[in-house]
Amino acid sequence: MRKVAIAGVGMTKFGRSDKSGVELFAGAAMEAITSSNIKTREVQALFLGNVLGDFEEGQLNIAPLCANELGLPVDVPATRVEGACASAGVAIREAFIWVASGYYDIVLAGGVERATAMDTPLATRTFAMSSESRYEVFTGVTFPGVFGMVARLYADKYGLSLQTLKEQMAMVAVKNHKHGAKNPLAQFQKEISLETVLKSPMVADPLQLFDCCPFTDGAAAIVVASADIIGKLTDKPVYILGVGQGSNGSLGRQKDITRIKAREAAAGQAYKMAGLRPSDIDLVELHDCFTIAEIVASEGMGFFEFGTGGKAVEKGETAIGGRLPINPSGGLKAKGHPIGATGAAQAYEIVKQLRGECGERQVDGARIGMSDTLGGDLATVVDIIYGV
Amino acid sequence: MRKVAIAGVGMTKFGRSDKSGVELFAGAAMEAITSSNIKTREVQALFLGNVLGDFEEGQLNIAPLCANELGLPVDVPATRVEGACASAGVAIREAFIWVASGYYDIVLAGGVERATAMDTPLATRTFAMSSESRYEVFTGVTFPGVFGMVARLYADKYGLSLQTLKEQMAMVAVKNHKHGAKNPLAQFQKEISLETVLKSPMVADPLQLFDCCPFTDGAAAIVVASADIIGKLTDKPVYILGVGQGSNGSLGRQKDITRIKAREAAAGQAYKMAGLRPSDIDLVELHDCFTIAEIVASEGMGFFEFGTGGKAVEKGETAIGGRLPINPSGGLKAKGHPIGATGAAQAYEIVKQLRGECGERQVDGARIGMSDTLGGDLATVVDIIYGV
Repeated sequence: MRKVAIAGVGMTKFGRSDKSGVELFAGAAMEAITSSNIKTREVQALFLGNVLGDFEEGQLNIAPLCANELGLPVDVPATRVEGACASAGVAIREAFIWVASGYYDIVLAGGVERATAMDTPLATRTFAMSSESRYEVFTGVTFPGVFGMVARLYADKYGLSLQTLKEQMAMVAVKNHKHGAKNPLAQFQKEISLETVLKSPMVADPLQLFDCCPFTDGAAAIVVASADIIGKLTDKPVYILGVGQGSNGSLGRQKDITRIKAREAAAGQAYKMAGLRPSDIDLVELHDCFTIAEIVASEGMGFFEFGTGGKAVEKGETAIGGRLPINPSGGLKAKGHPIGATGAAQAYEIVKQLRGECGERQVDGARIGMSDTLGGDLATVVDIIYGV
Repeated sequence: MRKVAIAGVGMTKFGRSDKSGVELFAGAAMEAITSSNIKTREVQALFLGNVLGDFEEGQLNIAPLCANELGLPVDVPATRVEGACASAGVAIREAFIWVASGYYDIVLAGGVERATAMDTPLATRTFAMSSESRYEVFTGVTFPGVFGMVARLYADKYGLSLQTLKEQMAMVAVKNHKHGAKNPLAQFQKEISLETVLKSPMVADPLQLFDCCPFTDGAAAIVVASADIIGKLTDKPVYILGVGQGSNGSLGRQKDITRIKAREAAAGQAYKMAGLRPSDIDLVELHDCFTIAEIVASEGMGFFEFGTGGKAVEKGETAIGGRLPINPSGGLKAKGHPIGATGAAQAYEIVKQLRGECGERQVDGARIGMSDTLGGDLATVVDIIYGV
C-alpha cells in the first residue's frame, strides 16, 4: 500500500450557525481544497461524517449534495458515513484506504453537523439514539448519564473519593478552556476557574454543566493525497502514519466501561501500523465529550497507567507546555463538538500544530500527533497517528 | 490491487417483520458467514447500509451493535454508510476496496431496513429527506412525485403518448411480479395482470399504486474475500469484476432527470474496471423503485437506446427467458425494497443466479450479472458487475 499524506485542511468557526449543513461543509472543504493548491475537479472522492442531518434539517444523503455544491464532477463518489461522534474519524480512515490502495490519488474527507438546530432537551434525546435503543435508551439513559456512570465506576475502581475525581475532572475543563481561549475557531474562547466548574449545575451526578461539552454547529475537512504526488501540492505535508477502528457492543455487553476495549483495539492498530509507541506521541486530540472521557481516553490510548489519568492532569502534564499536551485546540469541551465533524476538526488541529501554525497555542517542536474519537455507546473508536 | 470474490450470501424473507434491525441483519449475516464456511471471528470488517434506523427504531450507529450481535471481535471496524436507497451498494463497494487493497482478506457487507415501522404517509415523508431539504422537499415533492415527473418528461422527450408509456410501465410491474412469484423470499409472490396495474389508484400521475414498490423490512449480506483465499471458502466463487459510484446534485441542478448522469458515471466506471460492455451482461438487478425507474435505468446502464427501454419490456426482452433478464428476483417492485438493504439483496440474487441456484426463476447459462442501485434525489448510483 502507498504512503498517504494530508495536503490541506479547512474548518469553520465552531458555535452557532444559520448555515445549512451543505453550506457549512462547503466552506470548510473549499479552504482545504484551496490550501492544497488543487482545483475542485481534481478531487476524486468524498467521504463525509454526519450523524443527524435528518433530525437536524430533514436532510439525508447529504454527501452528494455537498459534492455538487463544491462543483465536484458527477463521477466522484460521495459517501456519508455514520459512526455517531466518531463519524469524521471513520470518513478519514475510508479516505486513507482509497488513496493507500492506489485507486485514487486525491480524496476529500471531513464532517459536518448542525447540532444547535435542536434545543438542549431534544438534542440530548436525539443524540441518545447512538446508544442501544431497545434496552438501554428505554431506561432513560442519555450520554451525560452514561459518562456519569463511567465517572462513578472509575472513582470506585481506583479508590478515588468522588470529590478528588470531581476536582481532577474540573481541571480537565479548566485546561481545555485555557487552550480554547487561544483558538480563534473555538466555540468558547474564555478561560474558566476551578470554582466555576465545581459550582456549575449538576447534570448527571457527578458530572456538572462544565464537565460537559456543548452542542455545536460546524464543519471541518482535509484533503488526503498519495505521498507520491504530495510534493506538488504542498511543501508542508503531514503523513497519516497509522489508522485504527474498533467496535464495542451495547453498554450492557461491556465488562468494564472505564476501559473502552474498542479504543484499546483502535489505538493498538494505529500504533502497529505506524510502528510507534505511546511515548512517541508529541500531542493528542482526543474525545473529551465529558471531562471524565478525557481521563479514560488518555489511559486507553496508553499514555498513562489506568487510574492515573486524572493525576496527570493535576500535575499539568497534559497542558500546553506539559509533557504530553492533550487537546491543545480546546477539545470538544471548549472548541465545541459538532458531532459528525469532530474527527476532522482533530485532524485540522494536528496538521496545523505539526506545521507550526498554531500561534499562541502552538505545541513547540511537535512532530507526531494522535487523534481519538469515540462514537455511541462507547461503541466506535477511531484513532489516527499523524507525523511530519 | 487484488482480485475480489464473494464467498457466501444471506438474506431474510422480505416483507413485514417485528424483529429489530440488529436482529434482521444478524440473521442475513449468519447465513452469509455460514455459507462461506468461515467462523464469525474470521470476519475482519463490516460495512452496513442503513438509511433511517434513527426514525424507524431510534437507533443510530447500528453497525457496531450488529458486529457485536454476530460475535465479531472488538478490533473489527463496523461502519454504517448511508447513500439513501443505494446504501448497501456503497457498503459493498467499501468492502471491495478494503479487500482489493490487501488490507483485509475477509469483509462482511450488507444492509438492513425496517421501513414498515412507519405507516405509509409518515414513511413517504421520511424517505423524502433523501431529497434536497431546503428548496425541494419544501415544495411538497416526495419520491412518487419525483418519478412521476421523470415519467412525464420521458413521455414528452421521446414522443410517447402518456397512455403508451403507462402501458409499458405496467408491463414492468407485471413482469417483476411474475418473477417475484418464483422467489420464496419476495414480499409479493403473486402475479398481477396489466389491468390490475392500470386500474390501481393514482399515486403521482401518471404513476399508479402498482407502479410503486412497497415499504419493506429486511436484510441481506455478503461475505467478500480475496481471490487468493477464495478457494478455501467455496467451490462456487463469484468475482466482483467492476464497481462504480457517481453523484448528482439536487434535482434542480440536473439538466435532464430522464438521464441520470450519476448512473452513467457509475456504470461507466464498472464497465471500465471489468473490461466489459453492456452486451456482455447476462442478467441485471436494477433499481425499479417505480416502474419508470426500471425503464430509465435499463437505458442509463447502456442496454437499450434512450427512449426505447419501454419497448424492450413490451417485446419481452427483459423477462426471464428474454434477451436480457432484468430483475429476475422480482426487483424492488415485487421482492420488496428495504432501502438500506437493497443493494445487498441485488448481490444475493446475482450470486445465486450465477451459481445456478435459483430454481424456477433461474436465468439459464448466466455468467455475468450487473447490479444498479439509486439513492436520493437521483443523487447516488452504485453499479457493480459480478462474474463467474
